[in-house]
Formats: sequence, structure tokens, C-alpha cells
Amino acid sequence: MIVRGHIVDVLNRRMFDGEIEFENGKIVRRTEVAVPDNAPYIMPGFYDSHIHIESTLLTPEHYARLAVEQGTIGVITDPHEIANVLGVDGVNYMIDSGKKVRFHFHFAAPACVPATPFETAGATVDSRMVTELLKRDEVYGLGEMMNVPGVLSNDPETMAKINATLAAGKIVDGHSPALTGDDLKKYQAAGISTDHECTTLAEARERVKLGMTIQIREGSAACDFDALAPIIAEAPGQVMFCSDDKYPDEIGQGYLNAMCRRAIHRGLPLWDVLTAACVTPLKLYGLKHGLLQVGDNADFIVVDNLQEFNLQETYIDGYHVVDDGLCTEQIVIDDTPLDTNYPNHFLAEPITVDDIAVPAHEGNIKVIGTTEGSLLTTQMLMTPKIENGLVVSDIPHDVLKLVCLSRHSKAKPVMGFIHGFGLRRGAIASTIGHDSHNIIALGATDEDIVCAINTIIEMKGGLVVVDGKDAVELALPIAGLMSYRNGARVAKRHYQLKNFAERLGCRYKAPFMTMAFMSLSVIPEIKLTDKGLFDATKFEFTDLFVK
Amino acid sequence: MIVRGHIVDVLNRRMFDGEIEFENGKIVRRTEVAVPDNAPYIMPGFYDSHIHIESTLLTPEHYARLAVEQGTIGVITDPHEIANVLGVDGVNYMIDSGKKVRFHFHFAAPACVPATPFETAGATVDSRMVTELLKRDEVYGLGEMMNVPGVLSNDPETMAKINATLAAGKIVDGHSPALTGDDLKKYQAAGISTDHECTTLAEARERVKLGMTIQIREGSAACDFDALAPIIAEAPGQVMFCSDDKYPDEIGQGYLNAMCRRAIHRGLPLWDVLTAACVTPLKLYGLKHGLLQVGDNADFIVVDNLQEFNLQETYIDGYHVVDDGLCTEQIVIDDTPLDTNYPNHFLAEPITVDDIAVPAHEGNIKVIGTTEGSLLTTQMLMTPKIENGLVVSDIPHDVLKLVCLSRHSKAKPVMGFIHGFGLRRGAIASTIGHDSHNIIALGATDEDIVCAINTIIEMKGGLVVVDGKDAVELALPIAGLMSYRNGARVAKRHYQLKNFAERLGCRYKAPFMTMAFMSLSVIPEIKLTDKGLFDATKFEFTDLFVK
Repeated sequence: MIVRGHIVDVLNRRMFDGEIEFENGKIVRRTEVAVPDNAPYIMPGFYDSHIHIESTLLTPEHYARLAVEQGTIGVITDPHEIANVLGVDGVNYMIDSGKKVRFHFHFAAPACVPATPFETAGATVDSRMVTELLKRDEVYGLGEMMNVPGVLSNDPETMAKINATLAAGKIVDGHSPALTGDDLKKYQAAGISTDHECTTLAEARERVKLGMTIQIREGSAACDFDALAPIIAEAPGQVMFCSDDKYPDEIGQGYLNAMCRRAIHRGLPLWDVLTAACVTPLKLYGLKHGLLQVGDNADFIVVDNLQEFNLQETYIDGYHVVDDGLCTEQIVIDDTPLDTNYPNHFLAEPITVDDIAVPAHEGNIKVIGTTEGSLLTTQMLMTPKIENGLVVSDIPHDVLKLVCLSRHSKAKPVMGFIHGFGLRRGAIASTIGHDSHNIIALGATDEDIVCAINTIIEMKGGLVVVDGKDAVELALPIAGLMSYRNGARVAKRHYQLKNFAERLGCRYKAPFMTMAFMSLSVIPEIKLTDKGLFDATKFEFTDLFVK
Repeated sequence: MIVRGHIVDVLNRRMFDGEIEFENGKIVRRTEVAVPDNAPYIMPGFYDSHIHIESTLLTPEHYARLAVEQGTIGVITDPHEIANVLGVDGVNYMIDSGKKVRFHFHFAAPACVPATPFETAGATVDSRMVTELLKRDEVYGLGEMMNVPGVLSNDPETMAKINATLAAGKIVDGHSPALTGDDLKKYQAAGISTDHECTTLAEARERVKLGMTIQIREGSAACDFDALAPIIAEAPGQVMFCSDDKYPDEIGQGYLNAMCRRAIHRGLPLWDVLTAACVTPLKLYGLKHGLLQVGDNADFIVVDNLQEFNLQETYIDGYHVVDDGLCTEQIVIDDTPLDTNYPNHFLAEPITVDDIAVPAHEGNIKVIGTTEGSLLTTQMLMTPKIENGLVVSDIPHDVLKLVCLSRHSKAKPVMGFIHGFGLRRGAIASTIGHDSHNIIALGATDEDIVCAINTIIEMKGGLVVVDGKDAVELALPIAGLMSYRNGARVAKRHYQLKNFAERLGCRYKAPFMTMAFMSLSVIPEIKLTDKGLFDATKFEFTDLFVK
């Protein structure tokens, strides 16, 4: 087969007009010939250098169909979420699902499962299991090392995982928000190569100077592109793009291609931008995919121009997986479904309004202050609204009750209060709550919160928005994290969920994702896990009331 | 077949729990039985009471596939756009395309083709042709009567069309923006039943009082819902919903269902809202589709609740055309393609930069002032920006050159200037320009305007955004108005066009639609047709310069 156009040889930072000929999945010839001015551009595909596919709510096979339509042909992915629910069995499920389609999946051995002892987890992945996983070709290395204290204190189990990875000649991914100075140096020196948690240019520069590669993240909640974009030109070769956590309806609106577009419209140099999007992930992780050189695998995309990067065609291993912008059946390797007895871990039982009552005490309450697009929270001291001796949601001040309930054990719910979501009616609930994915819910009334949680329990996982007797639901029967359905259906339902939440007053465009980080006790400042209100600065549980 | 849920009998303003049984496309039994609280709602489908399907950029058969996914099962549609290009042949093309799918199409005989003598048209539909069209069962009546002066002055040809329609027992649709008092009374008394051009509640109330039925319009450019919503409760039975002109990517984000949702969240009474969306069009136009009564055709939809109206299923004549939110092959009646020798009328030839030069004269220039979401323009007097004796686009003041070029004859382009679009670079061009659909373009530089126009000419119709050598294009080979492709592809490309325009500085979310009304000389205040700058208040051509 021959494709013709403006050839964008990112590896050699060179553009020429011509043809690419490929046979049996390999590029056999590159020829320089004249092409019309309005010919399309042929370039390497994009790689998402850090994504938890579970956050797309799709299985890897369905995720891939959405990704290729935006020109993304491979991922570095950490199955951290499913591992927190199902351990190594979950990792294997993701690898098996990925094998059903033509797409370049590279999985991490999850580094921190469970993430902390401060919430009830579904599983453990210890250093022995990590070592076993690293033997697999599908496993590129160790996933994001969130246990910064463990690295800094030479915790034996933590170091065993890192050292096993380095011994296997594989990469250790980092996660070091706000870490700086000597601590950062020690963290990097332990053998950690990357960080996707930079939110300021100063953080990115400090890491790059130490030789780390940073991933600029543009997800559905965390959006760091605008802050970090200058690093693309300052440190070409040490920058990659990633999404971390991104919803399916948003992938359909633009993905890595949208990041390239924004970078170009910002005036950043073309070759630096495309190196970050297409080349650096392959070099860093030692991947052998095609970069348009003779002898390479025929992995490439065709776009209309190098400002907009609107996708026309995608080829993976010579297969024409996107034709005129839409995914084709050529992406399929194996269309038999995986086991429909979906893997899950779900022990929670229905609750009542009495279970989530919060008796009033003297003093102010510690409210979790949130910001759209940030994993960080701030502790706010506020006067509680008290009715009949109970602390309740305070709508005018945007203080909503937040409830967390273990699904990995039979337990009672725990309660906190949260600011920023803006709900004036109803409630939302989810079984996506980093990292152990217990049940988390918030709402304007206790009745709606309980209804939302019990709906989730009935589905054994999912997302729900409730207002009185009306509800919009998305069932996530695979580990309480993923649907078995295709991207179009899940994206549509997810869009409906967000719309309903918005009409109930929600001010956040990605309320479920922002809520999902409210149990993530490794990121400051105050969180709520199924075990209680947690001070993520002091790393200890804390009281709701302050005298 | 049996469906079970909360039955929403809009016709009788009654809700009950039960089952609907249907056989051979007809409802044979309604049974009251208990259903779970979280059962879905079964209700009549929605009707768009006034749409130009051409504006979706899709053929009727492809439009229907998008519409049913939002619960719309029928339309009152005026093939006015294609008729302006191809006359009765164009109307026939639309009817034939509509017959390929299960969907309730009802076509108008276009009333005003050509709309005015002030631009070059592609065809004429005279009263004799209208009379012939009215004999067809597929034709519900006469399309929007835009020739208000013709009605008020008893123009014989205009009255012949109206009287032929009334004689056939069919409906005459109106179009009377800003008409009031005795003129409005005379217009209505001529036999005109509807108006979709109200933009204020006062206009709507005046028409309703005269016995007219008004269509609340929520399109991609004109959005009248917020202004008119109270009339839904004030005049139940005299209100319908419509889109008029709506893009495919926006239909996918919510259509009549979204209007119901907004009305309910605004607190309007459920039965009044659903009567407008589902019942009034059937009654007014005398249509025999199903309304969930025993003996009716099995036309209905299933939604999750009556706040959000998220669509689960659509049935048309008993066929299950939407399953779990996605269109099925049951919508297909005939999957052989229509003639691929696409009907068109296109005589324009490429132009040069010299062709669009505007020599400077003394005085100010009349600039067309535009507002997103309005078909109305205002005349602005501004100091021209002059370079080398020529008037050019003035970016800091957002004054862009506007060019119109006949495609129905070989002619020279005419030029004006326009304010409001905000483009800082590049140009956009289109062959959708109401009503004759000549070529219309605007841009920051003459070079980009010419490139955009010539790209359109090469495609023989379409939409294009140009910036230097980069362009995003959508070919519209069917009459220069429609693609032959499916909704997903066209929606995606249209989204890309808008995105590119936005990145060039465009401030409008629907720039092509707003631009498409800049030649519409029947709507005040100042427009540009292929024959020159037109004062739509005085109904005469006018000079660009004012001393």
C-alpha cells in the first residue's frame, strides 16, 4: 500500500513531500515526489504517556476505538485502579482486553496497591507480585510511585519494587506533587524517571534539570497544559503528553491531537511539540513502534494540516484502523467477548438515612474545600448548619454532606462536608474513589444521598445522579469501574449524567472525577476515606469539629 | 410486543403505570399494572414543527438517524433551501431521500422561491408548481410565507399559492418577524396559521391572541426559548417547538428533548410542555401518527425520567428504531443509495485578489453589525481602514471584508464589511447563504478570502476555514447544501470547522449559520447579496459609502 502527502518525519525533524510504501505491516520505501499543496500530512501517531484507562469507564478494547479516532495509537497505562479492587487478576483482565484490538498497550505493574493504610482496600500487590508482573512483555515497568515517604525512608517493600524494576531494565514512573529540593533529588536518585504531577513551571523545571521526563497532563479534572506549556520548548526530549484520567465523551472532543493544536496555536515550535507527542514516549520506554522510517512498523496517522491535526486516517502495524475519521473493523484482532461474569469485589449493603446522621457538637467544622481541575483540597473552618441536633448540608454556603462507605467490607458509612460543587438539589454517588474505589457520595439532602448510594449498591458499581424519584445511572459492573459497553453509549450516558448534575446546580464540569479524588489521602490537604476524615498534611485522621 | 413502565398519556393529560402491547405496528392493548418506581417513562415522540433539514448538512435519511436518537420521530419540514437551488427537482430529492427510512416526514411546498428579486436565484417555484406539489400526500401545505409585503398587498401570485393551499384543506405556515397591529391581522386573516419568528413574548402573545400557533425556535443561530418559554403555559395548544436551522453536532447534544428539559427545569407545567412537543403539531397539521391510544400506530419513545428526558428507546410504526440510545438498522426501509450523480447548480468560476478589491471613497462605510443568535443586523457607520487606496479589513475594530459571489451565474463578486465575527486571521466561506445560496465569505485578508472562495468552487459547494496554506473543509456536493455522508462524520467535520474558526479568533459558536443569514434580504437591517449591499428596511440597494 502507498500513502502520499506531506511526510512529517518527526524523528529527524524534517518534512518532505512524497510517498510511504508499506507491505506486511512494514514500511519498505520512502520516495520524494511532488504532491498537491492541499495534500494531507502523514505523521507518526500520538502516545498517551500516562493514563489510567479505567477512568475512561471503558475496557481497553473499547477505549482503543475512541483513541485511534483522535490519532492516538499507543499508551503507557497503569492499571492501578482495577488493581486496587482486584489485584493482579485485575491487571490480567486489562492485558487480556487490550489483546483484542490493534493498539499499542503498555501496562505498568501497579506500584502502590493499596495506596495507603488509611482506607479499606480490595487487594494488595506486593513486591513479589510486582516482580512476577515485570517478567511479562506487556509490562513496561513500575507504575507511578506515589509512596514518596516510602522512597525517602528507604522502606524495604517500596525499594524492592523499584529495584526489581531497574534490575529488569524497565522504567519506574513517578508521582511527586510539590516535592522539591533534596527530597526530590533523593526520590529521583532512587531510579524514578518521570513525573506527571507538576502543576507549576517551576516544578517541571526542577525535575527536568535532574534528568527526569515530565508528562504534561490534560485530563478531565486536572488540566496542567497552560501552566506547563513553555517546558515543551525548554526541554525537548524530556517532555511527554498525558491525560492521566479522562472521560470518554471528552476524548471524542479531542485528545493528544488537541494538546498539539493548543501548543501550535500558542506558538511553540512544531518539532518540539511533535517530539513530545510522538517520539519521547517510545525512546524513554524503549518501545519499538513505527516512526515512519524504512523498516519500521507501519504505524502512522494522516491529518489535514499541522495547525488543527484533524484526523483523517490511522494505520497501526499496517492495518487501516481509522478510515476518514471513523474507526474500522480492522482494529479487531479477536471479537469474542471476555467473560461476561464481570470481575468485581463488592460487599457493601444498603444503608438508611439514620446511618448518615451527623450529631452536632460545639465548634466549627472542617470542610473540604475543592477546586475544579485540582486534586488538591484546602481545609476550611465553617459554622455548621444544625437542624434537630444534626449537622446538615448548608445549600446557601455550598456546604454539602460527603459520605464514604467501604465496598470491600461490611461497614458503616463515614461523613464529612465539602465545599465547591454547588449542588442545590439532589445527590451524586460513585464507586470510583481513588484509590480503593469505595463508595463516595455528596448531596443536598440525606434522602437523596442514601438513594444514590443504594442505587449504586444495587448495580454493584456505577455512577448515579439522583433528584427525588428521578435518577440517571451508568452501571459499571467490571470492578465497579468500567462498563462493558462501547464508547458511544458510555460517552452519551456520561454526558447525560453531567448534564443532570449541572441542572441540579453543580458548578463542576467533571463532578464525578473531582469527587473521585476526595478519598485520595496521598494528596493534601484534607480528604475523607471510608475510615474517616483524614488530614493529608499530617497523614493522620482528624476530627470533624474544631473547638 | 409489550413495553412496561410509567405511561405518559399526553393526549389525555394522564399518567399511569402499566403496559402497552402492540402488534403489526398498532397499539392493541393498554393495561394498568404495577411497575417498579425506577421503571422508565413511555411517552409519545417529539415533533420538530419547523425545520429546514438542509441546514443539518445531512440528507433526510441521515438526519432521521440523528433525530430519533433524541426522541424526535417526525418533522414539519420546508425544503426551501434546496428549492432555491434546484426548484421542484430539489423538493422531490428530499421526499425520495426521506422514503428510505422509518420517520414521519411532512414536506412543505416552498412558498417563496426565489425569496426576493434582490439576489440571483437558482430556480423558481411558482403558484402552478405549488399547486402540483400540494396534490402529493407527502406535502402538508405551504411553507413559511416570507413575502409579507406580497400578502399585505394582495399580490396575485402570492395569494394564488395561499388559496391553492387552503382549497386543498392544507396549512399555510407563516414568517412575520416584527409584524404587528393591523398588518399582522391582515397577514393572519389571509389564512396563515403559524409563526416561528417571534423573538419577544409580546410578539408571541399578539399572534396567539389572533388564533395563530407559534413555534418556539431553538436553533444553532436563533435561540428564542428563554424569551418565549412563558407562552407554553399561557397558550397550551397554540405552541410548538422547532429548530428551524440546526447543525448535526448540536442535534447530537440534545434536540426537542433538551427543550422539554429546559422547560421542566424552569418550572413550566409538564402537560403543557409535552403537548407542545408531542401533540400540537399532529393536531394542527392533521397528522395521524400515534399518541399511545389503543388503535394508534405504535409511535412512542422511552425515557429515563420526566426531568431529563434521556432517551432509551424509540419506536416508529412498531419498529424499534433506537435501542438503548443508539439508532438501529430497523430504521432502514431501503438501503440502496440515491443517485450518486448529486444534483447541483454551480456556475461560479475561480476569482483573484483583484476581483475583491474595494477602492476607497470619501466618507464613512456602512458596516453590517451582527449578533450571535440573531438573523437581524444593524447598520453601523464606521471610518474605513485604507491601504494603498483600497478599503481593507480592520482587525482591531473587528471589521472584516464580506464577499458575495453568485453561483447561479458567471459574475463578479460584490463586497461589503461586517462587524461581530472577531476573526483575527484567515477566512471562512460557504455555499449556504439564505435564500439563494450563493457563495458568501468573510476574512481578515483578501488572500485568505480568495483562497476560501476558490476552495469552495473547486468542491462545487461546501464549508471551509482557511488560514494561509492550512484549511479545514466540508464538501457539500448535494445542491451545495448537503453531504451524502452519515451524521457522525458530518458532525465531526463540522465541529472541526467551528474549532478552527474559533482558534482564528471567531467569537461566534455558529459562524457559518450566522454568516448564512447575511444575504437574507427579507430580514432587516442591512445585508449583502450577490447583487450588492442591500438596505432591508427600505428594500433597496444602497451604497457602501456615506458622505
